[in-house]
Parts: sequence; structure tokens; C-alpha cells
Amino acid sequence: MAYSRHVNTVLERGKIKVADRIAVTKAGKTFEGLLMPRPEIGDPDSLVIKLDSGYNIGIKVEKGVKVEKSRHKEPKAIKEEEEFELGKVRKSLLKLKFDRKKPAISMVATGGTIASRVDYRTGGVRSAMKPEEILHNVPEVADIVNISKMHSPFTILSEDMVPQNWIDLAKIVHRELNTDVKGVMITHGTDTMHYTSAALSFFLKDLAKPVVLTGSQRSSDRGSSDAGFNILCSSRAAISDMAEVGICMHGSMEDTYCLFIRGTKARKMDTQRRDAFRPINDFPLARVWADGKVETLKKDFRRRKPGKTGLDAKFEEKIAMVKAYPGADPHIIDYHIKRGIKGIVVEATGLGHVPTFFGRPWIKAVKSAVSSGVPIVAAPQTLYGRINPNVYAPLRVLYHDAGAICGQDMLPEVAYVKLGYVLGKTKKMEEVKKLMLTNMAGEITERTLPETFLY
Amino acid sequence: MAYSRHVNTVLERGKIKVADRIAVTKAGKTFEGLLMPRPEIGDPDSLVIKLDSGYNIGIKVEKGVKVEKSRHKEPKAIKEEEEFELGKVRKSLLKLKFDRKKPAISMVATGGTIASRVDYRTGGVRSAMKPEEILHNVPEVADIVNISKMHSPFTILSEDMVPQNWIDLAKIVHRELNTDVKGVMITHGTDTMHYTSAALSFFLKDLAKPVVLTGSQRSSDRGSSDAGFNILCSSRAAISDMAEVGICMHGSMEDTYCLFIRGTKARKMDTQRRDAFRPINDFPLARVWADGKVETLKKDFRRRKPGKTGLDAKFEEKIAMVKAYPGADPHIIDYHIKRGIKGIVVEATGLGHVPTFFGRPWIKAVKSAVSSGVPIVAAPQTLYGRINPNVYAPLRVLYHDAGAICGQDMLPEVAYVKLGYVLGKTKKMEEVKKLMLTNMAGEITERTLPETFLY
Repeated sequence: MAYSRHVNTVLERGKIKVADRIAVTKAGKTFEGLLMPRPEIGDPDSLVIKLDSGYNIGIKVEKGVKVEKSRHKEPKAIKEEEEFELGKVRKSLLKLKFDRKKPAISMVATGGTIASRVDYRTGGVRSAMKPEEILHNVPEVADIVNISKMHSPFTILSEDMVPQNWIDLAKIVHRELNTDVKGVMITHGTDTMHYTSAALSFFLKDLAKPVVLTGSQRSSDRGSSDAGFNILCSSRAAISDMAEVGICMHGSMEDTYCLFIRGTKARKMDTQRRDAFRPINDFPLARVWADGKVETLKKDFRRRKPGKTGLDAKFEEKIAMVKAYPGADPHIIDYHIKRGIKGIVVEATGLGHVPTFFGRPWIKAVKSAVSSGVPIVAAPQTLYGRINPNVYAPLRVLYHDAGAICGQDMLPEVAYVKLGYVLGKTKKMEEVKKLMLTNMAGEITERTLPETFLY
Repeated sequence: MAYSRHVNTVLERGKIKVADRIAVTKAGKTFEGLLMPRPEIGDPDSLVIKLDSGYNIGIKVEKGVKVEKSRHKEPKAIKEEEEFELGKVRKSLLKLKFDRKKPAISMVATGGTIASRVDYRTGGVRSAMKPEEILHNVPEVADIVNISKMHSPFTILSEDMVPQNWIDLAKIVHRELNTDVKGVMITHGTDTMHYTSAALSFFLKDLAKPVVLTGSQRSSDRGSSDAGFNILCSSRAAISDMAEVGICMHGSMEDTYCLFIRGTKARKMDTQRRDAFRPINDFPLARVWADGKVETLKKDFRRRKPGKTGLDAKFEEKIAMVKAYPGADPHIIDYHIKRGIKGIVVEATGLGHVPTFFGRPWIKAVKSAVSSGVPIVAAPQTLYGRINPNVYAPLRVLYHDAGAICGQDMLPEVAYVKLGYVLGKTKKMEEVKKLMLTNMAGEITERTLPETFLY
């Protein structure tokens, strides 16, 4: 979408193109930044500028508004940026001297927004930081822990993660846990962080120390980034008493505290808020403050203990997730099976329904899949709450006759990861069913406490 | 799953089978109800009984616990039940005399839990009530409105709804709105009520009166049912000043008030709570109390006005919804297109991502779909928040180069319904894109207010 003819005329007159650095003066105030393309929704008469803070603003080009190319070629922030270059980072890391007397933790950096920086030419964000650069803006972390080792098995935005990444990551985390560090902190993209946290929860056995995943919703080089605070709280969680795999991110919009949420009960619930990660059907394990205060909210957390942590990272990647909705064609199940899929999670409606109209094609497809050895696991598309196969007659048919597996209060995403993990061990239907119904890592709770709704 | 050997011995001794009415005495207290099959998760030594209230309880069969067949063949509630038989209902409806001086509304009953009753033989729930029976337990409704007409185009549980049902329903509602009633109340199953409310929001044009969808999470014949309170509040909403299609259900766990939520911004967020319906990325239109108090929470609601309401209920049913997740195979897009699908909603991660790894197969699949005339609309799988195609480089490729349509802050379910509606009008890509990006019925908000998160 283009700007309006009027705005285009103004831009042409000033020889200004998208991504140029411009200065817009309105009512005596000047805004400098990069000219952005017009967003798809919005006033075509308003220019959108990405300010050096990283924020976009729209300014209506009306009478008295002056638009010109900026005299400054680079934002002031770029000087700070230069320090990120490799040689200088080394220097700045020297400045960030870790104290060997502080508790040692390992850091594993996997990419994501927390390892990204604003590309000042386009105003976009790209994944480009070295792992050690992530710490650049949080020198206070050295007052809390001694980051004695730093790994980066891969650097990707988390929407690009595949199950093999979970396995590779689990192997490194497993190795690190069995050294003398007190815990492991993982920096990670946020989009699929909850899939990774679920995978690590299942893969790591008899966990002896904390494994803390964190990330950021705004890149680390922005003034408004949540990265620093998340890292401070996460380093606290990593040396805490909680031997859990969990996600540690902002608990509110402010830098008050972070929530440490069990890896099988966390979900990204907002596209951009810093407190996007919420516990579903569960309380967070704890609130963690940057100053070291830890308020545990679940009494049944696993405590730090001596001994080795195990690893069981076999995974069947041939799995799929499908959703039941009005008009959904159950043929999708046959399709997946023909493509070689070994197990399917169905995001069911309400208490665990699939459509049952006209000859029950969905239930037939499920029954046929189960008969051919492909387990079908239902999980609640409402996210909150629990599937209950005993309330409605059609549910009895689906779960008792057709043989679907009732995912209880498991998140669909977690049921998906667990199904791949379980199918990595066995393809025998009865064993798959038994394992899927067994709580392994907090993914199934015995009862849902009312206060956890929309926590 | 069976009960433990110990429990089975006790049951055999008492000649008790599942679905028998039994009495269990523990510590001097006797519980009567139907013996349920053992739930898949739970203590195998605990009997599960469905009490006459509809609630299930588990009782551990330990020393001193007496288990026997009940002397009462039927629950006491069954006497009340008998009144539901057709002849007697007619009588009770006569008792429920509507006052012609009260504001007239039409009621359209479509089935669902609100029209279901407990089957006392199995303890399950089945859809079996006549529309007029729904009102049986809420005689107070006659103090508020004169339900002058009652329709029942179909009686189905909402998980079985298909788009044709939306069209049939819209036609009846449209006809009723253009009579002299003050509004229309629709009783509906809850599982897909938010799809139906979205469809009606798009189909009904220039709405002049309220259209209020309601239902219940527990069947109307149960003491604990939420049906009565929802109907009282909904009848208030139906005669209110708000000419909106909305869902009116419990706002909290108690019978305090209902929320009236815009039809394009509501979602069932819990499998069983009575306050399961929540507004997403929006405030509710209003809080509505059973006594008639209405507290509007959005100022921009559409007001009741004179004039006719229009109808535009063409719908392209050949649409699909797919989800992006780690390991998801983009071939699913080709599959749908080969099956004749005309448009696809992708539940994207974070700010609107699909996986972009190795040769960008997802982006290629999207590009190929769009090139062949099949629009791809991305919507946030986080549910809360807004997709923003301008932040990350891969997003620019997806939305600007490959031609995906950015669903803004539309719920995936609403984007799905809207896509079918838009494709019912045009298949021209540029027009589809323009319409999808145009707010038609409150489905796209200009900005997301922070306070609406997890409302």
C-alpha cells in the first residue's frame, strides 16, 4: 500500500525514498528517523517514521508540517552500536568481568529477538548478535552469576525451529547440567519457546538443577528492550532451588518481576507484550525479582538435588496437529497418514469434541486412524480447561469406541511435543495411550484451580 | 480403564454394575448417585459417582466405607424431570404467561447444552429439549420480556455446526429483526458459538437491533446450570440500546453479571467454566445484570435505530485453517488447494511468522498459492495481540513479496469466517485483500488497549 498522492508529492519534492533518514517538523517539534513503508491499515496521509528508540510513530502531513531529509546520516544510537563489533565486544566483555566466587551457570544462546538488532537501513530487525553481545546491556548480571561457559549451537529465529533443534539443544543442556555449574540459562526466540521448553521438559530426566529459558520481545539493542531484565531474573532462577525446566520472562508490563513458568504449562499469549508468556491451567512456579527475591507460587516444584540429570531425546518427527472447526474436512487425517505421519493431535472444541454430524465422518476418520496404528490425541482448543470424555454421548463414542486419547488439560502444543516424544519410544497403541495419559513433567495436572484462569 | 481389583470385588459382592444407582456411606454420610466408569486418570481405588446435582465425586473405597445398591430407583430430581414431558411442559408454559406490555423479542433455539438434559441412565448429557423447555427454569424471564415468537431451525450441538447452519440462522434472524420485536435472542451450543456470532456479524448489514447469542456450560435441567441466569441477562441485552451481534454469558464464576461481547471479538477460552467466553483484543461491549442494569464498557457501540436490517449471507465454504508450528509441513497448503480450497487462514506464530528455514518452503507455498489465486490470510496463534508485517525481515518477505494478507488483530476463527464471507463476494485477489484488511464488524481494532489482555 502506498501513501496518498499528497504525501507522495511531498516526498518526491524532497527526493525522499522509503528507508531514508528524514526529519519531520510539526508544531515546532522535530522527529527524526527512518521513513517506513505505509502500514496496510492506517491513514494514507500520515508518514510513519521509525524513531531511533525503535518505536514507530505516524505523523499526519497537513498544513505547516515540514518534511525533509535529515542532516544526520546516522542515528545517534549508531555510535553505541559500533561497540557491538566483534573486537570491541571482546573489550566490553573484558569490562564485564565475571567473579569466580559467584555461582557458576552455563549460557546457551540459540538466536531469536534477544540476539537481534535493529537494522537501521530498513528499520527492521535481524538476527545478528554474537551470544556474548546479548549481555552487553546487562553488566549487572556479573553481580549475580559467573557465566562460566557460553554455547551457541545455532542462531535462528524460533519460528524456524524444528524438532532436531530441540534434540541438539537438549544434548548441550544435558552435558552442561552434569558439570559443576548451578544451572543453565538458554536465550531463545519467543515464538516457539514454549514448544522448546516442553521438549526439554520431556527429554531431561531426573532433573537436578534449573534450566531457564528466556528471550525478549524487543531486540537487545533497543532502549525499550525487555532483554536485560529478563536475563537478570533468569540468572536468579538459574541459581535458585527450583530444578525445573521453565520459561522466565516479564510478569507484567513493567520491570517489576518475572514469572518462572513450568516448561509444559507456558504459552506465548500475545504477539508483542513483554508479559506475553502465561501459565495455562497452572500457577507459575514462582515470581522472580531481579534483586534475588523469589516467591514460589507452586509448592510441588522439584527441588535442586545432587546427582546426574539423564537424557532421553529420541523423537518421532512424523507427527502433525490439526484443528476441529465448523466446515473442517476430516479427510485431513487420511492425508496426514498417507504422508507417513505416525500420530496426530486434534485441537478439539469444548470438552473434547470433533464434529459428529452426518454419518460421523470425523469419528470414522479417527477410528480408522487408530485401527491402522496412528494414535489421535485430543487437546483443548480453548487452551484453558480440561477435556472430559464422560459428559456427552458423542464424546464417549470418540474416546471409548473410536479410541482417541484424551489429552486432559494439556496444551495442544505440549500434547504435540509429548506425542513425538512418546512415539520416539514406542508405536504400540496401548503403550502410547498409557504414556500420553501419564503425567511426566507437569503437563497434566490433577485438578485445575479456578484462580489459574487467565492468570 | 477399570477400577482396582479391590473395588471390583466390592462391586461384584454388591452385584453393582456401571450406571447402577448406588449409595456409598463414609464416616456417617451417604452419597447417592450413578456409578460412573473409572476416569482415565485418577485413583483406581476411588469410586466415581454422578450425584443428582450433576456433579461427579470420587470416594476412596477404604475400610469402613459401605457400598450398596440404592433403595431409590430414581433420583429425587426425576420428579421434577417428569414435568418436562411434553404435555406438562405445555401446562408449565401456560403458567409462564408472557405479558404483551413487556418488550417483545424473538427467540431462536438451535440446540446445544442449554437445550440438553442429563440422561440419568448413563449420567451423560444429550440434546433433547424442546425450545420452550429451555425457559422452564427461568419464569422470571416473563417479567422482563414478552417472547412473542420462538423458532428452532435445527437442534444440534454446536461442534456439529457447518457454515450452512450460519446461513440458515442468519435468514431467520434477519426476518425476525425486520418485524416489530425489540431484539433477537439465540440459544446455541457453546463450542462454536463464537464462529456463529462472527458469521452473523458479517451477514447482517446495517443492524438496527440487538442480536444476542447465549447458551450454557451445564444443561438446563441441572440445579447448577448457568442457563437461567444467562437467559435473564441475554433478554436484558436483547432489549438494550446496543444494536450489536454479541455473545452474552456469565462474566464471572458467580451469578453476578454477564458480559455482552462483540460477536467478532469473543472466544470460548475454557472447556467448562461458566465465564468461558472472553473478549480478545477488546473490551466487552457491556456488563449486563439480570435486574436490568447495563454498564457499557465500549463507547463506540452501535446504537439501536429505526430502519431495516440487511442480509448478505453468501459464503464460500471451500476454505481451511492451518497452523504454523515447529515441524509443520507446508505441503498442507498444496493439499488444500488440490482439494479445491479457495482460501486459507494460517495461524501464524508471534508477530505473524511461518517457518522460513532451508529454502523457505512455507513462503514458497504461500507465494505459489497466492499466485494461483488462493488468498492466504495470517492470524495470530497467540490469540492476543496483533500481527505486524514491518518488524522482521522474513515478515516483509511473507507479506510484501509472497502476498500473504496480514490479519491484524483478528482472531484466527474470525479470520476464517470472514474469509469465507469475503470469498462469497469476490475471488479477485486485490479485492479479497482489500476487504480482509477493512474493518467490517469490529473484527479489526485500530489499536489494542493494554487492559484488554487476559480480560
